[in-house]
Amino acid sequence: MHEIPMSEILGELRELSARRVLIQTPEGLKREAQELADFLEKNGIEVIISGDINYGACDPADREAKMLGCDALIHLGHSYMRLHLEVPTIFVPAFARIDVIPAIEKNLSEVRKLGQKIGLVTTVQHIHQLERVKSSLQEQGFTVLIGEGDGRISFRGQVLGCNFTTARVDADGILFIGAGYFHPIGVAISTRKPTLAINPYSGDAIWMNEEAERMIRKRWAQIAKAYDARKFGVVISTKKGQLRIAEARKIMKLLKEHDRKAMLIAMNYINYPALEGFDFDAYVVVACPRVPIDDYENWRKPVLTPPEVELLLGLREEYKFDEILGGKGEKAKAELKAYSIIIQS
Amino acid sequence: MHEIPMSEILGELRELSARRVLIQTPEGLKREAQELADFLEKNGIEVIISGDINYGACDPADREAKMLGCDALIHLGHSYMRLHLEVPTIFVPAFARIDVIPAIEKNLSEVRKLGQKIGLVTTVQHIHQLERVKSSLQEQGFTVLIGEGDGRISFRGQVLGCNFTTARVDADGILFIGAGYFHPIGVAISTRKPTLAINPYSGDAIWMNEEAERMIRKRWAQIAKAYDARKFGVVISTKKGQLRIAEARKIMKLLKEHDRKAMLIAMNYINYPALEGFDFDAYVVVACPRVPIDDYENWRKPVLTPPEVELLLGLREEYKFDEILGGKGEKAKAELKAYSIIIQS
Repeated sequence: MHEIPMSEILGELRELSARRVLIQTPEGLKREAQELADFLEKNGIEVIISGDINYGACDPADREAKMLGCDALIHLGHSYMRLHLEVPTIFVPAFARIDVIPAIEKNLSEVRKLGQKIGLVTTVQHIHQLERVKSSLQEQGFTVLIGEGDGRISFRGQVLGCNFTTARVDADGILFIGAGYFHPIGVAISTRKPTLAINPYSGDAIWMNEEAERMIRKRWAQIAKAYDARKFGVVISTKKGQLRIAEARKIMKLLKEHDRKAMLIAMNYINYPALEGFDFDAYVVVACPRVPIDDYENWRKPVLTPPEVELLLGLREEYKFDEILGGKGEKAKAELKAYSIIIQS
Repeated sequence: MHEIPMSEILGELRELSARRVLIQTPEGLKREAQELADFLEKNGIEVIISGDINYGACDPADREAKMLGCDALIHLGHSYMRLHLEVPTIFVPAFARIDVIPAIEKNLSEVRKLGQKIGLVTTVQHIHQLERVKSSLQEQGFTVLIGEGDGRISFRGQVLGCNFTTARVDADGILFIGAGYFHPIGVAISTRKPTLAINPYSGDAIWMNEEAERMIRKRWAQIAKAYDARKFGVVISTKKGQLRIAEARKIMKLLKEHDRKAMLIAMNYINYPALEGFDFDAYVVVACPRVPIDDYENWRKPVLTPPEVELLLGLREEYKFDEILGGKGEKAKAELKAYSIIIQS
């Protein structure tokens, strides 16, 4: 599925004079991480694999690497996110090998329904094919816009589960390329534009706006369940790229101003079972937006995002998707290298 | 059940000029932690509760406290462990209110079977009653020895799940006071002496040596399951008081010398589901000994302690309980204060 550029990584580590390295991997690249570890050890570098489950570049194990005496961190599967890191880190985004063009050609009649001017976005897996897709669509007569995004985004046109700034372009509709529903639903809600998702694996094209409405209805049900809640646990994350303490304080203030009690809770892996036993009526997760939205069925108490608290308190009327925004004016995007990006701490 | 000395903690925080504090709590003190948080906030101190499950003083959230901008950490439920901490930390051991003397008096005939010279140990919950128990037993004609223990132990006579050095005294048998089987089984195995456990809640007295033999048989079954394993994952913990990297390297070396492959894995919360997907035949946990011993039924692969690897490789014959030892000659034990111990970072 994915190719890890092992020799190039070894070269970068030698450049860094790294003697011991920590490897972080997402679920889907565990075997590849082991192969990389074997390869590096055969070449004289001591390797420690991080066994903690990792969901994104927002959760680099740089502190752990430092604590374990590692000179460098290899973060597999995600692209670089601008964070202050404690050891040099090699981000190795996992570019998928599948060609996305056939799925787009197959669904051209649907793509035309987006309008003439389309915004083009994808996840990091397919980001290396975005310029090819753009050319191909331009040949078909489309005007194609690829958004820069803000400082949280590594590549032009990339969307994260918590950031759709590259989709906010002056287009008639948005074409998302990739698998899964979460990202294109976020695109549809945050842009309020017709959004078509083309899955390069299945070849399917799905209009996301109805899915988005369905998700919004579910979220309103969560908000309704929290109407009578008096005591709120406001949960922040200790993951480096998910720590939103200022926003959490703002939510605490809002809740208190509206006669609710609120207590700040910090967690690494945010999950309901660890919170069982605390005496809160409802929770607000001011961290990764996927936690309250994807995982709410495992919570015995209502769990909201920050914008949903504003809806609850009557401070906002229209549903808003929770996003984590990066710095502004961050125009210099990462180079689209097939292997790695190194950040000096 | 447990009394948290809230005013004293507030006093200590004021002494430290702490304006923001992180509170860590074990499962059983979550409500008390919330009450303490409410009390401190009413007194002008900003509080963040750690939602991460905490099992011991070996896992202080001092790094998290620092990252969250807290001036101090309150660690509830466990006694001080000698670690380099990044913020001033108030350890608040939870002393149980139950009087342990009646359960001992009820079982005096069993206690006599230990011999005339008995070693006396307990967990931190009952440590404040140990001198009273000693006097009471001396009145009955016993010679009572309370061990100093090594540098990992806060109080004379205290045992941890990973340290039984206070039980290694020149006695005929050991009397353990407390609930649960893990600690007294560890005492029985590590001392090889008759061990009687008296539970102050139920009033029961249980001889632990047979329980210890049963546990050892189960552990040999785990070792047997690992006989054919070729690839070992050697798991270390990133919890400050469980990090045993030198010992892990020793185990890696032993395994490799005996033609096994071994890879180092670092995790915070060590659990099998997070490791599913890696290609290892067996695991060695070089961290908290409770993980492989208490949790092995949740692992789909054999999981061993470091001494069990020595048994597997034929380098040791007699079963040895895994312990984490502290520095030697650490005779100055903590003062037995009912409320708190403060460690400056």
